[in-house]
Amino acid sequence: MEAHEKGFFTEENSVEVVTGRNRNAKSERLKAVMEVITRKLHEAVKEIEPTQDEWFEAILFLTRTGQLSTEWRQEFILLSDVLGVSMLVDAINNRKPSGASESTVLGPFHLADAPELPMGANICLDQKGEDMFIHGRILDTEGKPIAGAVLDVWQANDEGFYDVQQKGLQPDFNLRGVFRTDADGRYWFRAVKPKFYPIPDDGTVGKLLHALGRHPYRPAHLHYILKADGFETLTTHIFDPDDPYINSDAVFGVKESLLAEFKSIDDPARAKGLEFAGPFWEVEHDFVLARDQG
Amino acid sequence: MEAHEKGFFTEENSVEVVTGRNRNAKSERLKAVMEVITRKLHEAVKEIEPTQDEWFEAILFLTRTGQLSTEWRQEFILLSDVLGVSMLVDAINNRKPSGASESTVLGPFHLADAPELPMGANICLDQKGEDMFIHGRILDTEGKPIAGAVLDVWQANDEGFYDVQQKGLQPDFNLRGVFRTDADGRYWFRAVKPKFYPIPDDGTVGKLLHALGRHPYRPAHLHYILKADGFETLTTHIFDPDDPYINSDAVFGVKESLLAEFKSIDDPARAKGLEFAGPFWEVEHDFVLARDQG
Ligand SMILES: [Fe+2]
Ligand SMILES: [Fe+2]
Repeated sequence: MEAHEKGFFTEENSVEVVTGRNRNAKSERLKAVMEVITRKLHEAVKEIEPTQDEWFEAILFLTRTGQLSTEWRQEFILLSDVLGVSMLVDAINNRKPSGASESTVLGPFHLADAPELPMGANICLDQKGEDMFIHGRILDTEGKPIAGAVLDVWQANDEGFYDVQQKGLQPDFNLRGVFRTDADGRYWFRAVKPKFYPIPDDGTVGKLLHALGRHPYRPAHLHYILKADGFETLTTHIFDPDDPYINSDAVFGVKESLLAEFKSIDDPARAKGLEFAGPFWEVEHDFVLARDQG
Repeated sequence: MEAHEKGFFTEENSVEVVTGRNRNAKSERLKAVMEVITRKLHEAVKEIEPTQDEWFEAILFLTRTGQLSTEWRQEFILLSDVLGVSMLVDAINNRKPSGASESTVLGPFHLADAPELPMGANICLDQKGEDMFIHGRILDTEGKPIAGAVLDVWQANDEGFYDVQQKGLQPDFNLRGVFRTDADGRYWFRAVKPKFYPIPDDGTVGKLLHALGRHPYRPAHLHYILKADGFETLTTHIFDPDDPYINSDAVFGVKESLLAEFKSIDDPARAKGLEFAGPFWEVEHDFVLARDQG
């Protein structure tokens, strides 16, 4: 038997030798996935040419990243987020037809059991922050209103914290709500102007961001999940385009079509009608859902 | 400002947007490394097109791999080993001049404080296994003997376990020793024929190997670290070419030049001279050290 037939590893044939071992993989999909991962990993190593110390630093980084993860914190998702991998997976799985609203990352703060509220409700339960009136329509790609669409919204408060991050300080289910559209496809509710906030930056990912000269902030946004029978579920945000971090979201979630307009309204009559004490912010934003492919 | 100038993320420009954030990295090396990692990671994601569930499975795999690592176990090194990354890093950092002995992986079982022994000592402290006589020379690339070369050897026993894996069952420092050559560059010592053994396969890496239809075994080998003033330190193995796993080492450590010959010797006079009770194995292997580049 010649040396190359024995399949001994060399710098040159490294990919073929390693992936050649997977002939009897239990799943064709796993075999294909591992072929790509092995090839790209070896390409990266050959291009980087890490020293033994650098290799070990990478081993320790990955180990600590796993060890930081708990029931309440997922440092590898954070790593995926700051390297743009989460947005890439989102993009690949949510290619929308022309005219449909675009998706973005879910984020870690969604609660499945937020209360369903009557249209117009104020989701701000502690009267903190600047009042905001949000409204718009949920439409199909022909521009027709979708009746019975479910809008699940959640946001950080005026200090950049979600209720689940400040248990005891914020009321339960503060700044969360589920609304259902009528025949006109319209939605409206009241809230407060959200603020930018940092992703958790006291772990390995935070250290990496710091070493890369990057900040940990996400520009102010509201999260939405929109569902309607016969349509693809849409997980998305709307962003405040005037936020200082709008062009440098730490997790790359911003898309042009997700920029809403936050208008400052000083109109005592309208404020009174909305039960606001003074000037408020108005955001009008329509969502367009793509028909289900299934 | 145009959309592309804002640097919003798209499937097409994902690499440029993410790596563009590293303009102010604290180290040029880190910036260069993260450019390659980000590019190869995005290439892999685009080729694989993982579902959201597959992405999450990968997140959980990495998290559990980190969480399995303890003071005594390093599951990410194991992952690096079975994907050929450890051997690739070894190869890149140990490109040897023609004629010099080749390196291979260090492995997790080296002890820094093994005892220095007189040439000829038997490193087998518990009389278990088949006797083995190992000898040869340590040479420079011109074939001249190296005096005062230090040979640090360690090996698994005849059941495939290192002393540190069987504390209490094996004597401390069983099958380990440090030897120093005389002017003739010769070394010789006595030991037992090693056996193949599995890498730890009860964790995430073991599950991956199983799903890929791969076994966890390393063919029988002895580990060496060879040091001499003015020469590059060589970390290597010698392998038993008749081992059933010689062509499928789970960590890809085998190289053609590391195959030794294990000869069965039935010669009562020689056995007596070596203080062996009967037939024994003889292994003759020369090592060639490359001159230090520094
Ligand atoms: Fe958020
Ligand atoms: Fe070993």
